[in-house]
Amino acid sequence: MSHERISILGLGAMGRALASALLEAGREVTLWNRTPGKAGGLVARGAREASSVEDAVGAGDLTVACLLDDASVRETLAPAMPKLAGRTLVNLTSGSVRQARELAGWLERYGVSLLAGGIMAVPPTVGTGGAFILYSGARDLFDRVAPVLAPIGRPHWVGEDPGFAALYDMAALSGMYGMGAGTDHAVALVHAEGGDVDTFKREVLQPWMEQMLPIMVAGADVSESVPDEYNPAMQATGLENILSASGEAGVPADLAGHLRASLWRMRRALAAR
Amino acid sequence: MSHERISILGLGAMGRALASALLEAGREVTLWNRTPGKAGGLVARGAREASSVEDAVGAGDLTVACLLDDASVRETLAPAMPKLAGRTLVNLTSGSVRQARELAGWLERYGVSLLAGGIMAVPPTVGTGGAFILYSGARDLFDRVAPVLAPIGRPHWVGEDPGFAALYDMAALSGMYGMGAGTDHAVALVHAEGGDVDTFKREVLQPWMEQMLPIMVAGADVSESVPDEYNPAMQATGLENILSASGEAGVPADLAGHLRASLWRMRRALAAR
Ligand SMILES: NC(=O)c1ccc[n+]([C@@H]2O[C@H](COP(=O)([O-])OP(=O)(O)OC[C@H]3O[C@@H](n4cnc5c(N)ncnc54)[C@H](OP(=O)(O)O)[C@@H]3O)[C@@H](O)[C@H]2O)c1
Ligand SMILES: NC(=O)c1ccc[n+]([C@@H]2O[C@H](COP(=O)([O-])OP(=O)(O)OC[C@H]3O[C@@H](n4cnc5c(N)ncnc54)[C@H](OP(=O)(O)O)[C@@H]3O)[C@@H](O)[C@H]2O)c1
Repeated sequence: MSHERISILGLGAMGRALASALLEAGREVTLWNRTPGKAGGLVARGAREASSVEDAVGAGDLTVACLLDDASVRETLAPAMPKLAGRTLVNLTSGSVRQARELAGWLERYGVSLLAGGIMAVPPTVGTGGAFILYSGARDLFDRVAPVLAPIGRPHWVGEDPGFAALYDMAALSGMYGMGAGTDHAVALVHAEGGDVDTFKREVLQPWMEQMLPIMVAGADVSESVPDEYNPAMQATGLENILSASGEAGVPADLAGHLRASLWRMRRALAAR
Repeated sequence: MSHERISILGLGAMGRALASALLEAGREVTLWNRTPGKAGGLVARGAREASSVEDAVGAGDLTVACLLDDASVRETLAPAMPKLAGRTLVNLTSGSVRQARELAGWLERYGVSLLAGGIMAVPPTVGTGGAFILYSGARDLFDRVAPVLAPIGRPHWVGEDPGFAALYDMAALSGMYGMGAGTDHAVALVHAEGGDVDTFKREVLQPWMEQMLPIMVAGADVSESVPDEYNPAMQATGLENILSASGEAGVPADLAGHLRASLWRMRRALAAR
């Protein structure tokens, strides 16, 4: 089976980006979406719109699901399970570790092979240099699928356990949301105190975050320790300063949740000394 | 006044890094620290240890303070104010916007010029390529001081208002702490579920955060809107998934504060639609 004919279930922002990158690479693409009418531009570029999930699943050597959540994947696949038997499903819908493991079990009972995935890209970066896709499941399945789906992002296998792509995906997303919580709060502070947000972003925030990124990744830890050069008392003072400055500036407390997470770590490190 | 003779008040991790970079560049450096005995290696490299704050202030064309917090700066300088009159203080101690403005007023009454600063580096990156220092205060003062202190990090002037260096510094630090809250939580999740933390950091977290950094900085905003390609309902579902997965994995809720900050933004965006 060459796996060159790909069916995509789900034409949200991400499903459309995947379809576009695959069409660009010359793959034969069939599309399905719950709400019809979202395939327009893609059909003009050579994709076929399927009339049902069954129709879509039957047309592809490989079916890719990119839906809202685990429940929508189950709901969408249920009527098409007989058709999917003996075929491969690549699930690029985000979800939890437990959901991925349970989905693998459910599919296995119907003779469907699952390659679980996690997309490490956003729609505008799909198919560009930095994008990569985490996959977990049988290694030989990954080896067959990887070249077919390579146009959406560099394929990266993280283990046999179908839950591992979700684990690494969710953990990395959590890291990203921390970055976003921090940058949102930073901008809110500068805005509230009458600073120039665009200059701040370009000349201060971006180069500072770039400098600190590898240091924060290296220093991320679950123990009570912090690296020697981080005096936790100094860090805690700094965090408390930023929290009170936020209050003074009238920035909503909800925006500062990430500071309390860091303060918690510093207080644990202090208590452990 | 050439400003080539520099006195440093404070030999914590950061004060020592500053002294080291300035000695390396051939500056004449005098050191003072509340607790004696911290100047050892630096004295061996040519620095002089002062016997009192007054002695230190008198020896330098320029005095640099790098202490724990604003209160320690006030306490340290008070007895040396007559000596400091007519001279320049560069304050590289982190603090709030209000503290910086009040310090400038206090110093002005004694005829002391303040250049307020914020160090955008950690001790190991002081004097390296990525390091930069924010300064605010009179532009002509900055123009005189900048070349003298350039060895510690690229000088970057952010305005006349003495509070602006602190504002941009605190805001950028808040961004960094968000990154740290996210990476700590990411590592805690992977660890709790039996994943390989080192592989995860190197192969997933670091490249993903690098890819997303400019996107998060560009998308940081104080309004109720989110970029079109971020369906806030999808984002909120994802955040709730990560929060419940954290609970299932037994990761402490304090570590997930940054997720609630992002969830708050998505809920506001949903409510505004
Ligand atoms: N966007 C990103 O930045 C990004 C990044 C990495 C991973 N992802 C993941 O990619 C997946 C899709 O994200 P997206 O950005 O494309 O989301 P989206 O724009 O909100 O699209 C959601 C898709 O799910 C479909 N859907 C929702 N409920 C359904 C149901 N019960 N049955 C069948 N279909 C249903 C929607 O169909 P209708 O058109 O009928 O509503 C739509 O096609 C998510 O798991 C997301 O976490 C997204
Ligand atoms: N380390 C970093 O990563 C970093 C990065 C950017 C900016 N900064 C800023 O740089 C400043 C110094 O940080 P650090 O890392 O050097 O901190 P640190 O290692 O904790 O050192 C604190 C310094 O402050 C002195 N001090 C504390 N209370 C004092 C008081 N009441 N009177 C006189 N001196 C007092 C200490 O003297 P003793 O030795 O007598 O206790 C020591 O020299 C802080 O404002 C920090 O926010 C640090």
